[in-house]
Order: sequence, then structure tokens, then C-alpha cells
Amino acid sequence: MQINDNFCKLPGSYLFSEIARRVAGYTGEHPEAALIRLGIGDVTRPLPPAVLAAMHAAVDEQGSAETFRGYGPEQGYPFLREAMARYDFQARGAEISADEIFISDGAKSDCGNIGDLFGPGNRVAVCDPVYPAYVDTNAMAGRAGEYDKVRERWTELCYMPCTAENGFTPDLPDGAVDLIYLCFPNNPTGAVATREQLKRWVDYANDCGAVILFDAAYEAFITEPEIPHSIFEIEGARTCAIEFRSFSKTAGFTGTRCAATAIPGELVRGGASLRELWNRRQCTKFNGTPYIVQRGAEAVYTAEGRRQVEENIAYYLSNARTIREGLAAAGLKVSGGVNSPYVWVGTPNGMPSWDFFDLLLQRANVVTTPGAGFGPSGEGYIRLTGFGGAEDTAQAVERIKRIL
Amino acid sequence: MQINDNFCKLPGSYLFSEIARRVAGYTGEHPEAALIRLGIGDVTRPLPPAVLAAMHAAVDEQGSAETFRGYGPEQGYPFLREAMARYDFQARGAEISADEIFISDGAKSDCGNIGDLFGPGNRVAVCDPVYPAYVDTNAMAGRAGEYDKVRERWTELCYMPCTAENGFTPDLPDGAVDLIYLCFPNNPTGAVATREQLKRWVDYANDCGAVILFDAAYEAFITEPEIPHSIFEIEGARTCAIEFRSFSKTAGFTGTRCAATAIPGELVRGGASLRELWNRRQCTKFNGTPYIVQRGAEAVYTAEGRRQVEENIAYYLSNARTIREGLAAAGLKVSGGVNSPYVWVGTPNGMPSWDFFDLLLQRANVVTTPGAGFGPSGEGYIRLTGFGGAEDTAQAVERIKRIL
Repeated sequence: MQINDNFCKLPGSYLFSEIARRVAGYTGEHPEAALIRLGIGDVTRPLPPAVLAAMHAAVDEQGSAETFRGYGPEQGYPFLREAMARYDFQARGAEISADEIFISDGAKSDCGNIGDLFGPGNRVAVCDPVYPAYVDTNAMAGRAGEYDKVRERWTELCYMPCTAENGFTPDLPDGAVDLIYLCFPNNPTGAVATREQLKRWVDYANDCGAVILFDAAYEAFITEPEIPHSIFEIEGARTCAIEFRSFSKTAGFTGTRCAATAIPGELVRGGASLRELWNRRQCTKFNGTPYIVQRGAEAVYTAEGRRQVEENIAYYLSNARTIREGLAAAGLKVSGGVNSPYVWVGTPNGMPSWDFFDLLLQRANVVTTPGAGFGPSGEGYIRLTGFGGAEDTAQAVERIKRIL
Repeated sequence: MQINDNFCKLPGSYLFSEIARRVAGYTGEHPEAALIRLGIGDVTRPLPPAVLAAMHAAVDEQGSAETFRGYGPEQGYPFLREAMARYDFQARGAEISADEIFISDGAKSDCGNIGDLFGPGNRVAVCDPVYPAYVDTNAMAGRAGEYDKVRERWTELCYMPCTAENGFTPDLPDGAVDLIYLCFPNNPTGAVATREQLKRWVDYANDCGAVILFDAAYEAFITEPEIPHSIFEIEGARTCAIEFRSFSKTAGFTGTRCAATAIPGELVRGGASLRELWNRRQCTKFNGTPYIVQRGAEAVYTAEGRRQVEENIAYYLSNARTIREGLAAAGLKVSGGVNSPYVWVGTPNGMPSWDFFDLLLQRANVVTTPGAGFGPSGEGYIRLTGFGGAEDTAQAVERIKRIL
């Protein structure tokens, strides 16, 4: 019996447990402290009424033999695939059809499971700082090499630093890579990529035969009209890109679970259609997303649902602006928060992330996320999010301003 | 760029597409034919009222900021893990605790994804006939070798024939294997394993260090009191077994999606706790089962829910008895259908599976599943299921009796 030794190479998932430990330590000594949590990456607004109505109706359907639905298509129901194709892609000039869209239970699942399609020898490029799941899933599959604890990086991954100097959008790697994870609007920095920047990535990938794994989970937060929402708005992307979509942050589905992966028919590597490989993977190792949830997701595309979703997004973006403008006025370097719920804040005088985290926790009673937890290039930053309540957010910003 | 070449070794998923092709061909020529489908492996009864009420309440909770739930625990909510531990395991004397249970979206997902924990060099044993997902997921992971089209088997898998001679429960393999898939009550044969038979498997696995992957998706159909519902009713299983549970066939969740995997704390291989490896896998590549669905599953364990589920199971089992007794009276060799919705029927005079399938389709207008589609040892059998309507089932049996 041989276990998958790659699992044993993974360092502990340090970031959020360490935050929890420090918060618990502080509140243990200061039980009277009224903490405000601006580190959270989870939504807090309830599901839109249109979604609730659709899910109630679907629950009722499941209660009658005439309308009961058993196993659905592994790829998702056509009603949802077609709505996504029309509104998320075709309406923006991105040529993606319903049969290139696969509905799933989450972008985290898809971002990890997509690795099943690729061999262990591929060279993988990730941003630094980065959403840890891209890294850990490749490490589990043997594509990351060994973890170097001193340098806090995997020996075989290609890291692409995202810093103030490059506006938090990575430069092309030196030499060829095979798989490239890009996430725009970015978690954790809140940065976006312009059409021109994405075009350079698409051209690079087509030149060297790489595949771009494009995480568009935050596209609904884009406010600037010239910023692409989908990699498939870029010419040439159909031969080099896979895109992940999610209802989590868009429509408040973090606890309801629905997402999608779009793979164009023209994306062929090693003589095989990646859409067909993914279809085979999903048909063999997945049995579809709950009917009730798919009906809820479909309601996001109704006129009513779209208006309600936009209200929630506007609420979170308003919080992000409160943070961004308040902390900029206090003299901190801020970015993100315009097309993203995330605000990326430079620490004062280059203070280490964790020191600034402690300072804000202890002196302002505000919980944040230290940027260093997302990778070495996150050192000197913290991440704040617009996902809290509006009053709490405003109060937290006032507290931070007071102590600076 | 290197794709996962193992995907390219997979033969087409032939069985259900070939059935669909033959049915479409027949109905094209005979549009007036009133087909009865007894080949289906999907439930048809609506969800129990207790489940519906719980899901409506959970949808309402998601509509209010005070009760809204975002990201849940990747392992599932304690309310459901605890209910399962109590009713599915501890009530039967199986020592499994809530923190050894991981809630998921489906047993098919878990049966496939569990392979992430194991290296590519392990030797895998499967029953013949077999639920194809066990085979295909191992083939995708490189553990099956090459597919031999003539012999209809993978070169590196260890096949364990389940035939009339061994009562459709496999003998121990010659020599050591590393991973053993067992499914009782069995799909497709409907056979069960006794306590003594399972004890032999547990002893074998503990002796050679193998891990038993026990699929208990059909345990709710067990009617004979001495038959174990869980591998963990067997002494010694905590050091050698993983069990898959599902609400699909139990409570009609095929389109609602909820399942669980139980991994005991004592299951250690290569120095690693498989429970911890699975926890890491799920935390990295999964984000939990929908809150609404978990509340629906919890309701299955209420007094009302249990009674309603039992009624549905009794309905399907009554259909299975109709099939079993009717076809036995017509002179066919039948097994299964007592502790299972599946009836495994020998063809008359050893007729090939597909020929008998065609005969029943064309002469009785009854759709079945040819046993040969589940593996070479399924040749000479067809699978019928109790998942249809009671009247249809009775009529189908009458039609079959008439043509024999």
C-alpha cells in the first residue's frame, strides 16, 4: 500500500488558523473588546429574493412524483448552461456556447479537479501573492516539487511576483510554462488586468502551447467598463484558456454552492480535446449539482435577480470604497477595491504584515488578513474586504485612522 | 504540455448509450409501443415531506441576514455528522464518531476522489460484474494498466468474479492487493455479504495492509436482520476500511446530492492517517455541501423522516419482489431483490445478455440492463430494478411471463 506521498509534503494551512489563534488570544485577555472583522472572504448579505423564490419552487417540484427530478446531467441542466452562455459570455462578445459550460458545486472544486486532466510533469506558474488552493492542489498532484520552508516556496513552481512596481499584474515568465493560473479581479490584491495585458498572456500561451486557467470568480465586481470580465473576450483565448465562474461572491452562494467551468471546443492539447477530457472526468467522478441549487442560480439571470444581485454587489463595493478612501486619507498606500471587494493595503513604513495585523487587532480591535500569508510578495501588506456590514466597516476605518 | 494520457486509454462509456441507441431504434420503428423501463438505476418517488419542510425552512434562513449561512465547514455541519454517527453507525454497534464522517455531494464523487490519497502503484481489486466508476477512476489515475479490448478487462486490475457458484460474493484474491472495492448490497447483482464473509475480508485486509473501500449506498434496502449495514459492524474494520454512504437511494436524493464518507481515526498507512489526508483533500479541493441540502438530509433522521423513508424503501422493495417472484415463477433463475432494489436475472438457456435485452425490448416492450455491460461475469444475466411504478412493474412482469 502506497499512499500519495505528495500530501505529506504540504505545510500546514497556516494562515487562517494562525489568525484564529491570535484573535482568540486577544479576546481571551480582553473579553470586552468589540472586534470588527474585515479580514473575511465570505459574503454576509442574504440570498436575493428571486433566488429564494426559485429554490422554494424547486423544493416543491421535488415533492411531487410528476415533477420530481432524479439524476440530472453531470454537465448541468441546459436551462442554466444556456443562461450563462447568453448573459455571462455572449452578451459581452465572448463566443462560448452552452455545451462548453459545465455546472459544478464550486470553483474551488473545479480549480482543483481540473488537475486530473494534466500529467505530473507540467510546469505550473502562479502569482505571488496567490490564492493557496492553486498551489496546494498542484503540490498534491506532484507538480510542485518540494516545499522549501526557508524561502516559503515550492521548488518546481514558477512564481510570478505581483508588486506595486508592476501594478499587481504579473509579467510573463522567463521561458515556457505549461499551466498558468490567473485570477482577475485578483484575490488577494483586488487588481484587474486590462484587455492589452490579457492579450499578451493569450498570445504567450498560444505561442508555447500553455493553458491559462482563468479564475473569474470576482468578475461581477468590475465597475470600469473597459476591463474584460472573461478571458474569452480576448481574441485567441479559445485555443488556450479555461475559465472558472462562481455564484459565490456574485450572488451570495458561498453556502449554497454553484459554479461553472467553460472550456472551448478548440482547446486541444496532446491531440485531445480538453472539453472532452473534462466531460469524461465529470461524468466519472461527479453526479451533477443539486437541481434546487441550479434553479436558484438560474434566477440570478432574470431581470429581478440581476437587479437584486447588483444591489448586493454595490453594497460590498461601497464598503470597499469606505476602506480604500479612508485608509488613503490616513496616509496608507491602498490599491484594489474599485473593481473588487478586496482592498490591498501597504503597511506603514514597511512594517511586517503580521506586526501590522497585531497592531490593528490590539489597538483598533479590527481583524484583517496579513498579506504575507498569501506568499512572500504579500509581505508588507494586509488584505481588507468589503464583505462586512456598512456601519461596522465605517467604524473600523475610523478606529484605524485614529491609531495611525 | 502533457495531458493525462490515462484518459485516452478509457474505452467509450458503452452501456447506457448502447441501450439508448437500441431503444431509440425500436421506438423509431414502433412509435405506438408503450415501453416500460425496468433498467433504471434512479429513484422515482418524490422527496419525503419531512425533507421538503426542512429544505423550505433552510431556504428561508438563507433569505435573512440574521440566519444567513455562507461558507460552511468543508467536512459538513456537525448537526448532520452527529445524526449520521448516531443513527447510521452507533445505533448498529459500529463505533464511528461524528469527526470521522465527511459530508459530500455524492458517493460517486467520493469513490472517485478518494483515489487522490493513494499512489499510482497500488494494485486494485474490483468485483466482476462491477459498478463502472470504480474501474474508470482507477484507470484515469494510472492504476489499471492498459485496456484489453478482446478480454474486456484492464491489464493491471485484479478482477474478482461474482457468479452463481459463489453466491455473487467474491472470493479472496490470490496474493496481496492494496485497494479493494466492495459494494453490498451489490450493484448490479443485489447480493449481500454476511457478517462472516465481511470478517474474512477485514482479516485479509488487516493481514496484508490493504484498504477496503466499502460502498454501502444500498444499505437501507437490507431487510434480513443478520446482514450488516456497515463494514464497521465488523471487528477489526477500523484499521482497514473506508465506507461510503449516500442519501440518493435511501431518501431519494439522486437529484438533491448528499453523501458521506466515514474514515476511522485508526486507519493509518505509510505512517499517515487516511482521515487526515482526506480532510486535507476535502479542505483543499471542496467547499462543502449546500447548507439547504444538509438540512434536508438531517430531516431523514427525524422520527417522521425515518418513517417516510421506510415507506419509500418498502415501495421499491415490493416492486423488486414482484419482479423476483414473477420471473422465478416463469422459470428464470433470479437472485437479489430481497435486500436490494436490484434483481439479477439469468437469461433463459444461457442466451447472451444483449440478445435477451433485445428480445424483451422487442417482444415485451420492457427495457432492462444487460449484465454483460457490467463486466464479463455479467454475461448471461440482465439487471432489473424496483425503482419503477408498482403498476408498470407488475405489467412488465406479466408481459415477460407471456413471451417466455
